[in-house]
Amino acid sequence: MTQVFNPPVRTLMGPGPADVNPRILSALARPTIGHLDPEFVRMMDEVKRMLQSAFQTKNALTLPISAPGSAGMEACFVNLLEAGDKAIVCQNGVFGGRMKENVERCGATAIMVEDDWGKPVDPNKLEAALQANPDAKVVAFVHAETSTGVQSDAETLCRLAAAHDCLTIVDCVTSVGGTEVAIDRWGADAVYSGTQKCLSCVPGISPVSFSDKAVAAINARSTKVQSWFLDMGLVMGYWGENTKRAYHHTAPVNTLYSLHEALLILEEEGLENAWARHREHHTALVAGLEAMGLSMVVDADCRLPQLNVVSVPAGVDEAAVRATLLADYNLEIGAGLGPLAGKVWRIGLMGFACNKTNVLFCLGSLEQVLREQGADIVAGSAQGAARAAYAG
Amino acid sequence: MTQVFNPPVRTLMGPGPADVNPRILSALARPTIGHLDPEFVRMMDEVKRMLQSAFQTKNALTLPISAPGSAGMEACFVNLLEAGDKAIVCQNGVFGGRMKENVERCGATAIMVEDDWGKPVDPNKLEAALQANPDAKVVAFVHAETSTGVQSDAETLCRLAAAHDCLTIVDCVTSVGGTEVAIDRWGADAVYSGTQKCLSCVPGISPVSFSDKAVAAINARSTKVQSWFLDMGLVMGYWGENTKRAYHHTAPVNTLYSLHEALLILEEEGLENAWARHREHHTALVAGLEAMGLSMVVDADCRLPQLNVVSVPAGVDEAAVRATLLADYNLEIGAGLGPLAGKVWRIGLMGFACNKTNVLFCLGSLEQVLREQGADIVAGSAQGAARAAYAG
Repeated sequence: MTQVFNPPVRTLMGPGPADVNPRILSALARPTIGHLDPEFVRMMDEVKRMLQSAFQTKNALTLPISAPGSAGMEACFVNLLEAGDKAIVCQNGVFGGRMKENVERCGATAIMVEDDWGKPVDPNKLEAALQANPDAKVVAFVHAETSTGVQSDAETLCRLAAAHDCLTIVDCVTSVGGTEVAIDRWGADAVYSGTQKCLSCVPGISPVSFSDKAVAAINARSTKVQSWFLDMGLVMGYWGENTKRAYHHTAPVNTLYSLHEALLILEEEGLENAWARHREHHTALVAGLEAMGLSMVVDADCRLPQLNVVSVPAGVDEAAVRATLLADYNLEIGAGLGPLAGKVWRIGLMGFACNKTNVLFCLGSLEQVLREQGADIVAGSAQGAARAAYAG
Repeated sequence: MTQVFNPPVRTLMGPGPADVNPRILSALARPTIGHLDPEFVRMMDEVKRMLQSAFQTKNALTLPISAPGSAGMEACFVNLLEAGDKAIVCQNGVFGGRMKENVERCGATAIMVEDDWGKPVDPNKLEAALQANPDAKVVAFVHAETSTGVQSDAETLCRLAAAHDCLTIVDCVTSVGGTEVAIDRWGADAVYSGTQKCLSCVPGISPVSFSDKAVAAINARSTKVQSWFLDMGLVMGYWGENTKRAYHHTAPVNTLYSLHEALLILEEEGLENAWARHREHHTALVAGLEAMGLSMVVDADCRLPQLNVVSVPAGVDEAAVRATLLADYNLEIGAGLGPLAGKVWRIGLMGFACNKTNVLFCLGSLEQVLREQGADIVAGSAQGAARAAYAG
């Protein structure tokens, strides 16, 4: 007979899911009601309104897709692209590559603008690609690359795209709640995000937002959206402003309770305060890591405070370090991906997990395990450096 | 400032979500761990094994899609069909129509086999369609039509399809856990289901199972699956037997805890006992409804015990009855859809919600509200008839 699954209690400081706020776990377990219940519809309206605040947008078409961030990404591509279209995809990490897959599976052509992993998207390269491809319909890029810890300048990239009459698709999975996302000021047209990063919520749904220009492009399509499940025209029948909600699919009721609670917590803290908190703890973590003698991979001016990518010291078995941290400290940090695999760790400071206790615990644990591994580090200085950083 | 959302405590006797077992709500709130955590991977293996039992299959490719049943449906169609293919779709309710949409959005052709809403799929019509379309690749039908309360003979339909070298796609969203689903005995090739019906779990994920023949067809595709998120080849990299799970998307960790608990509860009860329980309470509910003078829409030999479709008596405002039940009794029953809209109610007895208390509460509440509406019913006999049915 199978046994009840009681998960270990971890500290989640990887690339996500991050530690979930206990208030959010409690919200998740509230009694399930129907997805057409008037009380549920009222809650949906609040979720939409709070998402608009988190995204800093007035876009009416702002709602959570009932599936993870990958499906949010796909929703943006399949709704904006048709077979034969051309999209410029800026790649500087894993998720740009996934965007290319999405473009091609729509029967469209992807023009790739490549930057090194660990560097932001270069606006000059995008401008050159826009000039070389006047028939491009869409520009897609990742605001916060979870695979490398880099933030790109979304506002500049969106303005360049708009100047060439392109719609923009922007991945804000890891940024929302941690660093500023400003859809309306940027002029971004289709944005998707995740819940399990800086919103401190459980994984499984993906907030998206479409500008009026994007909605007009969807309405002007000559073919149906290839995904029935992700067809925004149909999704809107359920999430829209109409008083009678049309059944499209059964919403993930309890997961939406948890998103409601997560957005409420963000509203209570305030966006600016949340961003400042991420910067504060990031600064302390970096002070500690550097005091230990470790080096950050990403230049300071484009580092994501919520995802800290640090080089593995020479001669250290990075997987063994992560395994020991997990087994003996119940602490999860992330591995590198792609060209960074084996070379870096990714230390998340996301949402609820972004706090002083986690910073000090992570530094102390990592230092001890690195010493056991015989790494050439400066012993005994990490936590002190972090505490000094906190003291200002 | 937004307020915390505290949902009302309802009794969910509509078409789903159904009442969630409190054990499952508790499981949902357990601490989140990483989607690549070794403990999580171990739990995933147990989920796969218990799903195989629930589906009565040895299919290796049996796992939950990280999105609702509609996405499970889409996963089956986009993986088995390519542009230019032909699929025979049997329609006897809402979900057959949705299958047609899926076929067409794959660039394939749908040959429709129509039966009246409230009737099962007619095997003779399917046989005629198979003979008229020797180039069909897929036959799709709904085992348990949630819109009408009808069960079709999946075994016969699958055998007909196999005899004509067609793959089958079978919708078991409402059947699994309530009536028998026997993938291997049927010879079904791609089956999708839901969690929020007879598994008494929260909505948001969709168990699917693909036969070896279906996997071979996927491997023999000449084009990529149009959905990146639902590409089973990629999903298997994460859910497969390999010891090193490849990151595909972030799994809905907590919702998977709840599915694990739901499947454990089903394992503890036993499949046959669960089906017998659904029949027992269905029999009592029907006895009560008929004693009241209401009539069942579906013939007894193909009625779904878990979804009881009953005619609205003449002159009764069906929406007002549902609204009163919801407002004053916190009891949700379902409305009719499509041609049955306004004419029927759909009363679910699904999983945990399928119990004597709910049957008696529903009969008593419905009788009172119908009397207040001036309906021409036999007063005072419903609960007694149900209790007599229980007494045997």
